[in-house]
Amino acid sequence: MLSHELIIKEMKQRVYEANLKLPQYGLVKLTWGNVSEINRALGVIVIKPSGVNYEEMTVNQMVVTDLAGNLLEEDSMKPSSDLPTHIVLYEAFEQVNAIVHTHSTNAVMWAQAGRDLPAYGTTHADAFYGTIPCTRQLTKAEVKEAYEKNTGCVIIEAFQERKLQATEIPGVFVYGHGPFTWGETPAKAVENSLILDEICLMAKENEKINPEIQEIPHYLLDKHYYRKHGIHAYYGQK
Amino acid sequence: MLSHELIIKEMKQRVYEANLKLPQYGLVKLTWGNVSEINRALGVIVIKPSGVNYEEMTVNQMVVTDLAGNLLEEDSMKPSSDLPTHIVLYEAFEQVNAIVHTHSTNAVMWAQAGRDLPAYGTTHADAFYGTIPCTRQLTKAEVKEAYEKNTGCVIIEAFQERKLQATEIPGVFVYGHGPFTWGETPAKAVENSLILDEICLMAKENEKINPEIQEIPHYLLDKHYYRKHGIHAYYGQK
Amino acid sequence: MLSHELIIKEMKQRVYEANLKLPQYGLVKLTWGNVSEINRALGVIVIKPSGVNYEEMTVNQMVVTDLAGNLLEEDSMKPSSDLPTHIVLYEAFEQVNAIVHTHSTNAVMWAQAGRDLPAYGTTHADAFYGTIPCTRQLTKAEVKEAYEKNTGCVIIEAFQERKLQATEIPGVFVYGHGPFTWGETPAKAVENSLILDEICLMAKENEKINPEIQEIPHYLLDKHYYRKHGIHAYYGQK
Amino acid sequence: MLSHELIIKEMKQRVYEANLKLPQYGLVKLTWGNVSEINRALGVIVIKPSGVNYEEMTVNQMVVTDLAGNLLEEDSMKPSSDLPTHIVLYEAFEQVNAIVHTHSTNAVMWAQAGRDLPAYGTTHADAFYGTIPCTRQLTKAEVKEAYEKNTGCVIIEAFQERKLQATEIPGVFVYGHGPFTWGETPAKAVENSLILDEICLMAKENEKINPEIQEIPHYLLDKHYYRKHGIHAYYGQK
Repeated sequence: MLSHELIIKEMKQRVYEANLKLPQYGLVKLTWGNVSEINRALGVIVIKPSGVNYEEMTVNQMVVTDLAGNLLEEDSMKPSSDLPTHIVLYEAFEQVNAIVHTHSTNAVMWAQAGRDLPAYGTTHADAFYGTIPCTRQLTKAEVKEAYEKNTGCVIIEAFQERKLQATEIPGVFVYGHGPFTWGETPAKAVENSLILDEICLMAKENEKINPEIQEIPHYLLDKHYYRKHGIHAYYGQK
Repeated sequence: MLSHELIIKEMKQRVYEANLKLPQYGLVKLTWGNVSEINRALGVIVIKPSGVNYEEMTVNQMVVTDLAGNLLEEDSMKPSSDLPTHIVLYEAFEQVNAIVHTHSTNAVMWAQAGRDLPAYGTTHADAFYGTIPCTRQLTKAEVKEAYEKNTGCVIIEAFQERKLQATEIPGVFVYGHGPFTWGETPAKAVENSLILDEICLMAKENEKINPEIQEIPHYLLDKHYYRKHGIHAYYGQK
Repeated sequence: MLSHELIIKEMKQRVYEANLKLPQYGLVKLTWGNVSEINRALGVIVIKPSGVNYEEMTVNQMVVTDLAGNLLEEDSMKPSSDLPTHIVLYEAFEQVNAIVHTHSTNAVMWAQAGRDLPAYGTTHADAFYGTIPCTRQLTKAEVKEAYEKNTGCVIIEAFQERKLQATEIPGVFVYGHGPFTWGETPAKAVENSLILDEICLMAKENEKINPEIQEIPHYLLDKHYYRKHGIHAYYGQK
Repeated sequence: MLSHELIIKEMKQRVYEANLKLPQYGLVKLTWGNVSEINRALGVIVIKPSGVNYEEMTVNQMVVTDLAGNLLEEDSMKPSSDLPTHIVLYEAFEQVNAIVHTHSTNAVMWAQAGRDLPAYGTTHADAFYGTIPCTRQLTKAEVKEAYEKNTGCVIIEAFQERKLQATEIPGVFVYGHGPFTWGETPAKAVENSLILDEICLMAKENEKINPEIQEIPHYLLDKHYYRKHGIHAYYGQK
């Protein structure tokens, strides 16, 4: 097997397994989610096929495209309809290798509410270095012109306006729609979807238990984020 | 096997399998739900028997009736007590081939609250083209005269008054009672029950996260609904 | 095997199976629940042993007592500490053959809130013919004197003051503690625990979705309750 | 096998099994939790390794340290990063033999809300003899100097200021972070985590069902706590 064929085969396996994690983690019902991975050197994206049930999905059905979204394999299935969103994010976030979109219950609630998610605790700080943004609403023109591509553009816009780093805040809410998360690997991007949903659940209940709740102080955010990330990280076995 | 016997056998299988999906999806506890399918050409409805536990239910117990609800098979079990509601809906909604009734937790909450469900996000718009109506309360006379039939009649009334299409809004809340959903097939009607319950859950929490929440703009509703429905649909593999 | 030995053996089996349903239905964590059955002709009660884990519990561990709670078998385990409550209820509610106590999440919430549960929908009306009462708080003297017995007494008091029939309202909240339910058989009493927990969940969310929510009209309560109970019942296969 | 080797082997087994209970009980997602056990006579602590997934974890990976946290075995994995917190608690709470830390959803909500948990019912009173405290926020200096150790110190401070006994209140909320619980054995400490999460869930909903809710009277707290604890306990089989 040629080297680039082997790389693609392994990408398919990782993307397939990461997709299967979504219903296992309770983050996806029916067909409401997709995972992709990019290999920039090879110029290849692998993504879930559109509208396929997770129970019936096979690893060979994973769709391979170039960086513009053109199909690269014969008899390929159609890629997830959200592929143009993934492409825009890969172009802008150069350190991101994998992207996940779900309709997970609690994250969708925040997206539909149109609110940013404040860092109310260390569970948040362990994975997201501060407030997680919600995009603005897309305009009528943006929806008509190129809906999925422009969904990616308003995400980029939200990160640029707030001067956020995609590596530090590996997720976002698209207003009225739902969450996207990302990471170094498909598995890590799925893990960030799980964390995002959990901290959305905690935050909405927090506000009821204590309507005066404040964000955690910045020094605590720093402590927890850098306990797990960067050169001074000391969590885990490395 | 004669052709119409085969058709009925297949209807029983589909209705049976769709009924079993209800507890699997967490939409039904005990015996609180039923699925039916109609074949108008053959003049036949197949529906779950009344009060039978899902664990013990067999495919042969599915009840076959004519379009007026008369039993067509010897030694038939009694049909679901909600059959007259199904019949009224089949008469009025000519493109509907299957109907589901559940007491799914979140949809019942909205039915008991007596409120319509606004389209707060794209999860809603992907399956329901706008606000999902709640019927008015049945009158004392309607309950006494023919409760189950009149339950169907107030559903029709709600759709007529609001000028709604059953194909575009495949579900409804019956005030004080619970949801009915429908679709082209039993499987699709069950899927709409799942979606309805999920968007009910999201919506009630949305209103707490953001009490000022608005419906999504109509152009976004259009985009998502027609991404999955009609001749310009581009979601999925077809 | 003598006739009364056989009856007790069958009671043990039913009580055992009903107890196992509690964790299966998600109504009990750890050891927080118990089921009993009475045979008045034989003068015998069978109840779960105290503090035994459901995973390790065996049918032979079920405890047999007389109607005053005295152990009837050699090497018997200790009965549930709530046995005196069961005895008081059996004495007062002559048509009740089985009793269940749980700490199911949603029913405990209402008990701790000290509120009656209004009939907000037909899921409630199908099993409980109207408002489900919450007892008053026990006094210090009542707790000191005979806590478990007096827990039964305040339940009886609540039913007498409100002129309720135990057969029509097969459950109650003990203020600050949790629910008791009952029925003709252990299985039916457990089913009522499941229904009670579900309608508690629905009701608390209803009040948020619509703070102006009203009870369902009495003619609808009548319709649903008598559709399933009494000589004119037409739900199910009988 | 030498006697102390056998003791450590058994500690590893208990700590391993207790750790596995956390995801089984739904108290831990990903790697968010840890259990430890101390043997003061032997001068040994056994604790979960840092950042290891529960599905892959083996009993031999349990980390053995002395009472200052120094590794005692060759080729040992790194201990949980929360070990310094455990050590401070073991030093102050002499009757505590096992400690658990989780990010269980409902307990984290209270920790993030920064609130003590009042005793609203007997489910609480059965295991916790009164209000469960939330620590103060750590200062910037405390976080910088020795975060995990000082997390233990603010827990001790909370117990001393309120004159609480660790044996009577076997758990605490760390402000902005999450719960710690403890007990005589790893299994018992995990059980207290389960109870704490459940009573947090009940309490937050109670306050919505009845905003005027009061704590249970002290005589009821006494009754339930001492029904299960101390020399007059009569719950269970002993």
